[in-house]
Amino acid sequence: MPHGKQFTLYTNSLWINGWAVVFVLNRLGLSYDCHQIDKTTVNGPEYLKYNPNGRIPTLVDHKNNDFAIWESAAIVLYLVDRYDPNHQISVTNPDEKATMIQWLFFQAAGQGPYYGQAGHFLYYHSEKVPSAIERYQNETRRVLGVLESVLSKQEFLVGGKLTVADIIFVHCNIMLEPLLGAEFNFEKEFPATFAWHSKVTASDGVKEGLEERQKAWSA
Amino acid sequence: MPHGKQFTLYTNSLWINGWAVVFVLNRLGLSYDCHQIDKTTVNGPEYLKYNPNGRIPTLVDHKNNDFAIWESAAIVLYLVDRYDPNHQISVTNPDEKATMIQWLFFQAAGQGPYYGQAGHFLYYHSEKVPSAIERYQNETRRVLGVLESVLSKQEFLVGGKLTVADIIFVHCNIMLEPLLGAEFNFEKEFPATFAWHSKVTASDGVKEGLEERQKAWSA
Repeated sequence: MPHGKQFTLYTNSLWINGWAVVFVLNRLGLSYDCHQIDKTTVNGPEYLKYNPNGRIPTLVDHKNNDFAIWESAAIVLYLVDRYDPNHQISVTNPDEKATMIQWLFFQAAGQGPYYGQAGHFLYYHSEKVPSAIERYQNETRRVLGVLESVLSKQEFLVGGKLTVADIIFVHCNIMLEPLLGAEFNFEKEFPATFAWHSKVTASDGVKEGLEERQKAWSA
Repeated sequence: MPHGKQFTLYTNSLWINGWAVVFVLNRLGLSYDCHQIDKTTVNGPEYLKYNPNGRIPTLVDHKNNDFAIWESAAIVLYLVDRYDPNHQISVTNPDEKATMIQWLFFQAAGQGPYYGQAGHFLYYHSEKVPSAIERYQNETRRVLGVLESVLSKQEFLVGGKLTVADIIFVHCNIMLEPLLGAEFNFEKEFPATFAWHSKVTASDGVKEGLEERQKAWSA
């Protein structure tokens, strides 16, 4: 590790994924160097050695024999399991931990893919398919509805406090305007989820990460 | 728990999801009663109390104060964390455990949603969209290619042994023929993945679960 930091984070600051890991590294005060991956290198042999899936992010822990791990939520769990001994953003009770992990899976299987498909059919698909756009915009709203049904009864998803279960939803929820259009009113349609999202985005580590992202995206 | 079993599994035997949990419960010799959920009850207030996402499966552990957990992979992790003390289908080393969890997330975020969208556009979408079918069939093959790149170098995904990281891929990989068509030759296109899949489907617990599924699907 010529950069002297504990971690190397392979990511692309202009892509959607990767930011959840930045938020958590920041929050836990862990030192990392961002190695930018692009459309070519993401499928190149050097990167595939670390991550056969050819997607960002991947984290390499130089203080653990260069252990490499990929999938945002798996990385985030790795980080809190090892480097959050005081449970700043994780829970201690085993049942609560199972619930925290459940929400990480809901993000990975529910929010990420459906928001992602909405983005694909809106901006990247080879032809315009209004019925596909409608399907994935509806799924995006459905995911928000699930969160709303829970967050209208409690402040955070698990343990009565901010954890990685909350942080993991941020990098997709900041994309709602491009996905649902300028007429989408987050606060009005999903008030409890909006309040929660506002709290999480203003929290330590996430806030700094979002400022960093803003710089990268407006450069 | 009037049925006297340790767990109630809320599922639908004719749907895709839910089977991974059956495989693991079987393998660990845990007693459970299947409560069948249908298109109406899956969004009814009684079920949403356990699972605000309105999807199957959900597991309720009557020996843990009726603790309820949903998302297949989160359930499977809960089960091995508590009820696999001899690590029959889990790993002990913390780095290997992180890798096991990484593969669970790849299944949840990669395999499940993309295979699922292929199925949606092939069988359920409001209109025929060949470019969407092509996209998701390609993504299905891409996922198999990722597995192949790893399994051509090692027998199982983690720890040199069968774990839940392998079992979790079965319920989607048994759907490859309806998704990719009768001309798809799993063994020829992805030989290492096919060999692995064959081993996992023949393993204790998975085999019995698949026989149960066969009965339900052919009834």
